[in-house]
Amino acid sequence: MYPNWILQRAQLTPHRTALNFEGQIWTFEKLKKISIERAEQLTALGIKPKERVAIMGPSQPRLIFMMYACMHLQCEMVMLNRKLSKHELEYQIKDAQVEKVLVDDEDNSLLPDHQKPLLFSEVESSMRKPFEIEKEWSLDQTISIMYTSGTTGYPKGVRQTAGNHQASALASVLNIGLTEEDVWLCAVPLFHISGFSILVRSLLYGNAVKLYKKFDEEGAVEDIANGTVTHMSAVAVMLQRVIQGLEERGLRASPKFKLLLAGGGPVPENYIERAHRLKLKVSQTYGMTETSSQTATLSNEDALRKLGSAGKPLFFNQIKIAGALSPREMGEILIRGPHVTPGYIGHFSEKGATADGWLHTGDIGYLDEEGYLFVVDRRSDLIISGGENIYPAEIENVLLSHEAVQEAGVCALADETWGQVPAAFIVLKSDAEESELMQFCTERLAKYKVPKHFHFVPALPRNGSDKLMRRKLKDLLK
Amino acid sequence: MYPNWILQRAQLTPHRTALNFEGQIWTFEKLKKISIERAEQLTALGIKPKERVAIMGPSQPRLIFMMYACMHLQCEMVMLNRKLSKHELEYQIKDAQVEKVLVDDEDNSLLPDHQKPLLFSEVESSMRKPFEIEKEWSLDQTISIMYTSGTTGYPKGVRQTAGNHQASALASVLNIGLTEEDVWLCAVPLFHISGFSILVRSLLYGNAVKLYKKFDEEGAVEDIANGTVTHMSAVAVMLQRVIQGLEERGLRASPKFKLLLAGGGPVPENYIERAHRLKLKVSQTYGMTETSSQTATLSNEDALRKLGSAGKPLFFNQIKIAGALSPREMGEILIRGPHVTPGYIGHFSEKGATADGWLHTGDIGYLDEEGYLFVVDRRSDLIISGGENIYPAEIENVLLSHEAVQEAGVCALADETWGQVPAAFIVLKSDAEESELMQFCTERLAKYKVPKHFHFVPALPRNGSDKLMRRKLKDLLK
Repeated sequence: MYPNWILQRAQLTPHRTALNFEGQIWTFEKLKKISIERAEQLTALGIKPKERVAIMGPSQPRLIFMMYACMHLQCEMVMLNRKLSKHELEYQIKDAQVEKVLVDDEDNSLLPDHQKPLLFSEVESSMRKPFEIEKEWSLDQTISIMYTSGTTGYPKGVRQTAGNHQASALASVLNIGLTEEDVWLCAVPLFHISGFSILVRSLLYGNAVKLYKKFDEEGAVEDIANGTVTHMSAVAVMLQRVIQGLEERGLRASPKFKLLLAGGGPVPENYIERAHRLKLKVSQTYGMTETSSQTATLSNEDALRKLGSAGKPLFFNQIKIAGALSPREMGEILIRGPHVTPGYIGHFSEKGATADGWLHTGDIGYLDEEGYLFVVDRRSDLIISGGENIYPAEIENVLLSHEAVQEAGVCALADETWGQVPAAFIVLKSDAEESELMQFCTERLAKYKVPKHFHFVPALPRNGSDKLMRRKLKDLLK
Repeated sequence: MYPNWILQRAQLTPHRTALNFEGQIWTFEKLKKISIERAEQLTALGIKPKERVAIMGPSQPRLIFMMYACMHLQCEMVMLNRKLSKHELEYQIKDAQVEKVLVDDEDNSLLPDHQKPLLFSEVESSMRKPFEIEKEWSLDQTISIMYTSGTTGYPKGVRQTAGNHQASALASVLNIGLTEEDVWLCAVPLFHISGFSILVRSLLYGNAVKLYKKFDEEGAVEDIANGTVTHMSAVAVMLQRVIQGLEERGLRASPKFKLLLAGGGPVPENYIERAHRLKLKVSQTYGMTETSSQTATLSNEDALRKLGSAGKPLFFNQIKIAGALSPREMGEILIRGPHVTPGYIGHFSEKGATADGWLHTGDIGYLDEEGYLFVVDRRSDLIISGGENIYPAEIENVLLSHEAVQEAGVCALADETWGQVPAAFIVLKSDAEESELMQFCTERLAKYKVPKHFHFVPALPRNGSDKLMRRKLKDLLK
């Protein structure tokens, strides 16, 4: 049994800064008090310990208070991605069979229309009812559930236990170190593991989080140049904007700034080289929802020597390449460790996440002679756009549900800003305009998933067994 | 399952310095290679995986190689205290039912005469035989066994599992932080948890250990003043000598030096104040063999504000006072956490270490309003002399086995150098000289346990039920 992180952290370092948001400060003691108050309000409103709830809102303190309240209640939190369409949210809420949806008033209009959520404001103004706060947590209790798509295009709810999160945070600290002065800039979504893991680390490490509601290039550049933050998590597009911001202003990263953790897809090599010139230390990471954040991380010292690598596994983690007998042999990347999810909920709850204790990522890669991981190809033709994962099958399913569409294939096209964007290749059975299909997708898919390009073609490339060959779609453009 | 620490550390940071001894350097890769070689040599000499072995030697690299070899073989290592008498060693070796005793040639003469140990030199010059190295360890496998005495005076072999050691190292890093430059000075015995835990931390953290064969005041003072080490573990008598050394040479601790972890008994307040004047950061800790090192630690910032306190529990640990309903109420100190031993071996294997999941320390203390622990009185009249625990009952048992002794009582007397030393109060049944009793004890007890003072008295203070009142022994001196 391990202590309730929120209580223990407040007990150990009550007066340290836990959260900084738009200049306002909350200590760990304050966070504890508010989160218990929220938990009592949720109790008064009928939420019971260990129930499953969904939670949605922009990145601001009230969302963190609500999450910590749910953690006190040991509720399983389904983290809803606020970029999703109503259709997509509907699917997840139904699949997860949540007792209640908790939503920041700001995001209420994003929910499916028939939902009767509990608004944050209702909770915040509610009466309080005491509950028995659990002082100890078991490592196998589920803290969070995050949906991720897969080969089939149907999102799967991934369980992330207290043990997963804790192992991830502990393995990370053994890699990147820790001092009392550490402040982590969080401008990645709290509903993704990249953001939520910053909160977990803060509770375990006792360090401050500087939270941004939205990524703010100017703010981040200043924070990094002044050393008011020491760490930052970013996807490639944010890293690019930070680099450009520093370059344009003729600034460099402060020596106090220790690490920008770059995840959510590959980082162009050119960024790494420019970052080095700006004294901006960047570590590339490889991780996924199923591994509660980082599995491997490339240290800054190795960044130039091992360009393109995602580094070595963190201390508790193991990586192997299926079928590989020697270095540089390519194959599916398999992962093992205490950070790997025990499995899924809902429709995929029968499907184990691992085979023989190893998570089969579907990603293709190799380990070099020194054990550095190189990710060569993403699972299931995965498209990564601005750090968000997009599975072609999910978009194809939507397109195929349109009456005019005979066949649909989706693949990634390179994009200056987002790294990649989805493009659709369509065989029509009756007339339809691009604008009509785009509108159709926009109603059913998160904006970042809506194809940026539509190409009408006479046939799609298929193999002998008639399987769509997504990698050949791009050739149709020639 | 967690990775074999030695293999994983060598895989992640092969070229970092792991060990520095008398100017010679070993990297983690080197340590791995040598330890596997030793394991193969042990295999050739008939040691099988998971067997229980005893191990003894002075603090030097060959002892570490041998320990790590045993860890590769997943052998349970009984760590023999080389200060013990042959009688005492005999008891432990027999109680633990070890398959083999591994001993540094230097210490062979310290073993009971009939023992047929395996000398380190024999292992080092042996042929090698391959074995299947276990790449994963389970948290509940026993890594080390350390004997500690108790109320009865009969030493108990305490199991310390991989999970205990790992939890201890991880909780400690969350408290004291970590940077790549960290170097830990180890001049405390490797057979005690204070020393062995430095090795465990080094493997998990990837930091260097500067090992001293014996505590060397001049060397330690230089290391601290020059910043060639960043951390040091010490008992009060070593701390005192470091302080005095710095004072006499007009030196101060380097700003690079981060922390002297002072354990193994109370630290006089005067030391703390002098250390502060020397910019020497000192953290007092409270721990014991059963908790695989620190349970609570007082941070340096709190050192003066909370003089006399052992601090707050580390992140995974819980402390409560039996029966206490409010702060400052005194009672037995109870401990809970993943660092607490699952139990004992040998004669006491039936005796659980915990009740309801809590370790009953026998120590008396209280928690103040802020949750800081104050240890008021040690368990079972425990005497702590230079960081070594001495249980009066153990010495009394020896004295009572002397034909001239009718009754014997042992208690602590304050001592300038050692903090405390044991003193014996004796009722004779026939004539005996002090020198004779001293000689008798010297043959049967570790030197540090031999009473420094003998007082012949007509009767011992006893309570109504005739129980010896050790705390009243001192009054006999008046």
